[in-house]
Amino acid sequence: MNRYADANLTMLTDFYELTMANGYFVEGLADRVAYFDMFFRRVPEEGGFAVMAGVEQVIEYLQNLSFDDDDIAYLQEKGIFNEQFLEYLRTFHFCCDVWAVPEGTPIFPGEPIVTVRGPVIQAQFVETMILLTVNHQSLIATKANRIVRAAAGRPVMEFGSRRAQGSDGAILGARAAVIGGCVGTACTIAERDFDIPAMGTMAHSWVQMFDSELDAFRAYAHNYPQNCVLLVDTYNVLKSGVPNAIRTFQEEVLPRGFRPAGIRIDSGDITYLSRKARKLLDDAGFTDCGIVASNSMDEYIIRDILIQGAKVDSFGVGERLITSRSEPVFGGVYKLAAVEWDGQIIPKIKISENVEKITTPGFKQVWRLYERETGKAIADVIALAKEHIDENQPYVLFDPEHTWKRKTVADFIARPLLVPIFQAGKCVYQGPSVKEIAAYCREQINTLWDEVLRFENPHRYYVDLSQPLWSLKQQLVEQMH
Amino acid sequence: MNRYADANLTMLTDFYELTMANGYFVEGLADRVAYFDMFFRRVPEEGGFAVMAGVEQVIEYLQNLSFDDDDIAYLQEKGIFNEQFLEYLRTFHFCCDVWAVPEGTPIFPGEPIVTVRGPVIQAQFVETMILLTVNHQSLIATKANRIVRAAAGRPVMEFGSRRAQGSDGAILGARAAVIGGCVGTACTIAERDFDIPAMGTMAHSWVQMFDSELDAFRAYAHNYPQNCVLLVDTYNVLKSGVPNAIRTFQEEVLPRGFRPAGIRIDSGDITYLSRKARKLLDDAGFTDCGIVASNSMDEYIIRDILIQGAKVDSFGVGERLITSRSEPVFGGVYKLAAVEWDGQIIPKIKISENVEKITTPGFKQVWRLYERETGKAIADVIALAKEHIDENQPYVLFDPEHTWKRKTVADFIARPLLVPIFQAGKCVYQGPSVKEIAAYCREQINTLWDEVLRFENPHRYYVDLSQPLWSLKQQLVEQMH
Repeated sequence: MNRYADANLTMLTDFYELTMANGYFVEGLADRVAYFDMFFRRVPEEGGFAVMAGVEQVIEYLQNLSFDDDDIAYLQEKGIFNEQFLEYLRTFHFCCDVWAVPEGTPIFPGEPIVTVRGPVIQAQFVETMILLTVNHQSLIATKANRIVRAAAGRPVMEFGSRRAQGSDGAILGARAAVIGGCVGTACTIAERDFDIPAMGTMAHSWVQMFDSELDAFRAYAHNYPQNCVLLVDTYNVLKSGVPNAIRTFQEEVLPRGFRPAGIRIDSGDITYLSRKARKLLDDAGFTDCGIVASNSMDEYIIRDILIQGAKVDSFGVGERLITSRSEPVFGGVYKLAAVEWDGQIIPKIKISENVEKITTPGFKQVWRLYERETGKAIADVIALAKEHIDENQPYVLFDPEHTWKRKTVADFIARPLLVPIFQAGKCVYQGPSVKEIAAYCREQINTLWDEVLRFENPHRYYVDLSQPLWSLKQQLVEQMH
Repeated sequence: MNRYADANLTMLTDFYELTMANGYFVEGLADRVAYFDMFFRRVPEEGGFAVMAGVEQVIEYLQNLSFDDDDIAYLQEKGIFNEQFLEYLRTFHFCCDVWAVPEGTPIFPGEPIVTVRGPVIQAQFVETMILLTVNHQSLIATKANRIVRAAAGRPVMEFGSRRAQGSDGAILGARAAVIGGCVGTACTIAERDFDIPAMGTMAHSWVQMFDSELDAFRAYAHNYPQNCVLLVDTYNVLKSGVPNAIRTFQEEVLPRGFRPAGIRIDSGDITYLSRKARKLLDDAGFTDCGIVASNSMDEYIIRDILIQGAKVDSFGVGERLITSRSEPVFGGVYKLAAVEWDGQIIPKIKISENVEKITTPGFKQVWRLYERETGKAIADVIALAKEHIDENQPYVLFDPEHTWKRKTVADFIARPLLVPIFQAGKCVYQGPSVKEIAAYCREQINTLWDEVLRFENPHRYYVDLSQPLWSLKQQLVEQMH
């Protein structure tokens, strides 16, 4: 059923992944084992956290990795690739180990969210699609979650397909939006393929196709009594749309037992119109008839109109969600962290004048420490993979930049965030359904303190380094200078 | 070879397209012929024009429209669709007429860029994907063209796959970027499928995988003498990267007859670094070695650093192009313009308090008038489809809002922009290749006056209505009030 599971996106790769792969092959470095980390440096819109998403599609991509004859022929024609390298591609078998943070997990800058270990020729090659997939879906899940939180319990529906950046932007964007907390999407194929509720009612053209707005409403109510939401702004919301909707409801076009589900306002000033419409509906006895607003919504507008007393029961959010319009890029990067040599892990660092751009070396794990009593997240600790954080011992956290800032924690639960996804090229992870991911996401965001959830100037959640990792990083920085 | 041509995206549709289609079917309106226009209201970033793109993918979408058994089973399970309607979908045959403005054409707010005529059940249904496809690619083609113009003749390469919003965002985004003027892309699959040049060299990790930067450069030069571009900012551009690049070039690692193609700077201050690097290269005799810049580029930064005297020969542009970061939404809409009744075309209008949102009714054509002598575009005229603008007669243009502003033009060439794409469901249009579209786009943008091309406060290109269309619109507006 799921077309993604079958799509072969092997050739969706930056061309330099191929020139480098060929170069490693020719230089005899192809089998040198390398560790790459995906991480990001900034939360979009200066928010307090991001939401991990896209792991299922990374798995499908990796499982489908293979070069067909057309791909090889195309590469051959370029005239720059070694024949034995092309033969290697022809019989390509993915054999890396992959770890990832489960989808729906709140994630923070600087911590590895995907780690790939394997022959450099492979571990490097998958960079483009791992970044593309996780960047895109994490962007949308993060944005959706902001909008959902602004709606303060009111359902939010994803309505943006027509403004998405390509079909995957729409379909996987809808998937990510539901992970972030949307209750459904207008994107039908997303329901078919991911079992997330598709919803929707009518366009203005429906109303225009009938001789009158009232006729259009009657026809709709007659056909869809289960979910009768009438679009009231084709002509004039208060003078025509809402009165005609009320008349339709009063005429009992709806079969016995059905109540009107709502009206939808798609233009104009939502605060003003929703308050007036609410009064009209209430006065007519339809206090249970909801109001859906769907005009250029995002978290800022939703927050503002709710503060102003808008009477909106649910939101349809379009282009500003599906493109994350206010910040449409999730800047995840994929960096070399270590190589293996004679069975030893040799950590690698990339130095930069810009201190934030210095990478954290080595093969690592990320631990999240939760207060045992409250369940609240205390801090994340990036440690070497071989370290173990013992919940039964007090643990000393310290700020990696201002190392005198220390805090000893006890009575905590320590949870490793990176879980195995592939072992030696074989998928070892059975991902949950989108609905399960969404529920997990909600639960995990509840472990964050409110201070971290603020839109503006949120509290910076602690992401610390373990003492061994901190020392290793310092040592490598000094070696480089 | 082209996976898009085979993808069935029929179910990528807003759910309301299906509820409306079912409603029209049940209400006996399915075969009522309707006309829908796609148009947009604002040029992104307040630019002077946009670039049309995405027609080829609209064609593929429409050619592949069909519902398979799984789709029908899924819809059936929803429990809200009429059985005969589902039977209609099972044997669905697209039978509409479609007109579109050719890809690469400069387009302006308010004018129809796609028109669909056919049974409303079909003409409405295709709304979501027509909008999605043309919105996405026109957005990227328009943005790419801005960036290309800022680069003032220097080649611009599209490097953004890893930050694209989904795989189509990357692949079709690369296609659109080349339509807009980019010379190539890093996205390999886009070359395989669209014959647009894929290019790229190395990542920082290539340099890190070798014992030294010099070794990494030597290995690269040895493998790729034809296109030896060395990434010089892994450690330190001026102290390490450029000196090592020069040493590699001097060592004649490149076989006889090959010259170094360039160095790439991917971080730091490009103005400063490129000027210093240029001097080092020139002093070493490599005056023909180019400098590629690729750090967070867009049209504003490119313009600024060139004004400051940056010595950059070509640009690699990533996330800010592939997501059109500064304005990631192209707001095309799809509105009912007319219906047929007893063989007569009945124009339809949508009124709004917001004057700009009032639609232009009727079945229409868009004419572009070019000065015969200079070839420059004078104005566009939206007319009724049955009108013909005669080049041999003087033509009176007038501003549709300020109707006293009139201008009589003569000696012009009048070109209808909307061309037939489908007739009665059959594709009648053979689209040009991407390279041909890009050449046509360049040529067409040359027909615009420089004043229209400005980034800030461009001259507003005239989009007028013909007298008959203007009168019709006025009449309908008055009827509605």
